[in-house]
Amino acid sequence: MTSTLILLRHGESTWNATNQFTGWVDVPLSEKGMAEARRGGELLVGAGLLPDVVHTSLLRRAIMTANLALDTADRHWIPVRRTWLLNERHYGDLQGKDKKETLQTYGEEQFMLWRRSYDVPPPPISDDNPYSQAGDPRYAELGDQAPKTECLADVVARLEPYLRGPVADDLAAGKVVLLAAHGNSLRAVVKLLDGISDADIAGLNIPTGVPLRYELDDNLKPLVAGGQYLDPDAAAAAIQAVANQGR
Amino acid sequence: MTSTLILLRHGESTWNATNQFTGWVDVPLSEKGMAEARRGGELLVGAGLLPDVVHTSLLRRAIMTANLALDTADRHWIPVRRTWLLNERHYGDLQGKDKKETLQTYGEEQFMLWRRSYDVPPPPISDDNPYSQAGDPRYAELGDQAPKTECLADVVARLEPYLRGPVADDLAAGKVVLLAAHGNSLRAVVKLLDGISDADIAGLNIPTGVPLRYELDDNLKPLVAGGQYLDPDAAAAAIQAVANQGR
Repeated sequence: MTSTLILLRHGESTWNATNQFTGWVDVPLSEKGMAEARRGGELLVGAGLLPDVVHTSLLRRAIMTANLALDTADRHWIPVRRTWLLNERHYGDLQGKDKKETLQTYGEEQFMLWRRSYDVPPPPISDDNPYSQAGDPRYAELGDQAPKTECLADVVARLEPYLRGPVADDLAAGKVVLLAAHGNSLRAVVKLLDGISDADIAGLNIPTGVPLRYELDDNLKPLVAGGQYLDPDAAAAAIQAVANQGR
Repeated sequence: MTSTLILLRHGESTWNATNQFTGWVDVPLSEKGMAEARRGGELLVGAGLLPDVVHTSLLRRAIMTANLALDTADRHWIPVRRTWLLNERHYGDLQGKDKKETLQTYGEEQFMLWRRSYDVPPPPISDDNPYSQAGDPRYAELGDQAPKTECLADVVARLEPYLRGPVADDLAAGKVVLLAAHGNSLRAVVKLLDGISDADIAGLNIPTGVPLRYELDDNLKPLVAGGQYLDPDAAAAAIQAVANQGR
């Protein structure tokens, strides 16, 4: 049986303008981000692709994106599942820091290692850092297991059982599943689905606000590698813009 | 063990201004309604009353109210349960009709019977009425059992097993439970909790946007009859305003 999984990366947050590392810091969408979310909902309607269930992270930029996209698509009433396993990568001690200042302090090589390497996490955040999630009730159940920093490999490791568990269960029940999440948690999902190597995942970017549709077989193997963006031109332009950032 | 249940009636919808019967028609909140929802969230924060789980109807005015109130209270990340059993009373053939015209057509006695009697439903809505929910995918599972009109007694009958089932289960697990719902579905909840008679429930109104807190014993019996509004003055003023409408 074929099943349908839709990935939706949240739109711009208020920290885009301030150029700070976000990670698990729970910042809201900007006005532009809200418009991106509604546009994502319009793309779902245009493709006749109506989610039966939505999974979100515990961060309001993904939750708001799901709420706005689903309201636009008249699917605000579907069941909701929330899990920290879909959270953005924890950015450790870099959370809240200015990106440009961090680049100047640590240099290009270290900076890019933290941003793009597969298995080098930033230094862990201390509990008394104002951008730490220590004491945040939404992670209380995790206790000592709550991450204080993560590399992409850590995100893949936490996401795999969730993808092969609750998400696969919904897909097996014939539901169209929407995951509303983050750049790195969705890169982890794509890596798992498409079997992308640890090296190649560094070059993969997922644009914001453009739903990415996967048709999957019973083993969660994509019928079309890489899936299909509902607005391929917008997705290509956004990916190109990211690729050009370093030039 | 004592548990905490919070009832929150959605704020003003766009059909307040147009003075139409709403029922299961899925109209959005007005700007004022959104502000009421955020104010409800502020009242939760002010009372230190933080929901651990939210139950909503399948209608966007209750869903939006929950989303806005919980985002304001920084509890947007809690688990969500949705059910048609919390929907507003189905208003039958009156759905979409102008209230004033309906009063003129049918006369005061019939009008008040439909609005305030316990067990007289309006005529059923026909499937080809543009305000019917026939074919709405969110009620597909109900099939022929989907209501086409309801009196308050019908709402009480559908809500009782949900209150004593999933809601009671969450309360027994020690969770602070928020129900975001509608004037008549919340009147049904209050009737069940406080043991109000079929006759007396006609005189009970629940104001919009003011959280109503119940502390309950193991048998869902309120420690304080009628619960406690988080803003008693606002609640009293809103209830008085409704009482004055007929004069």
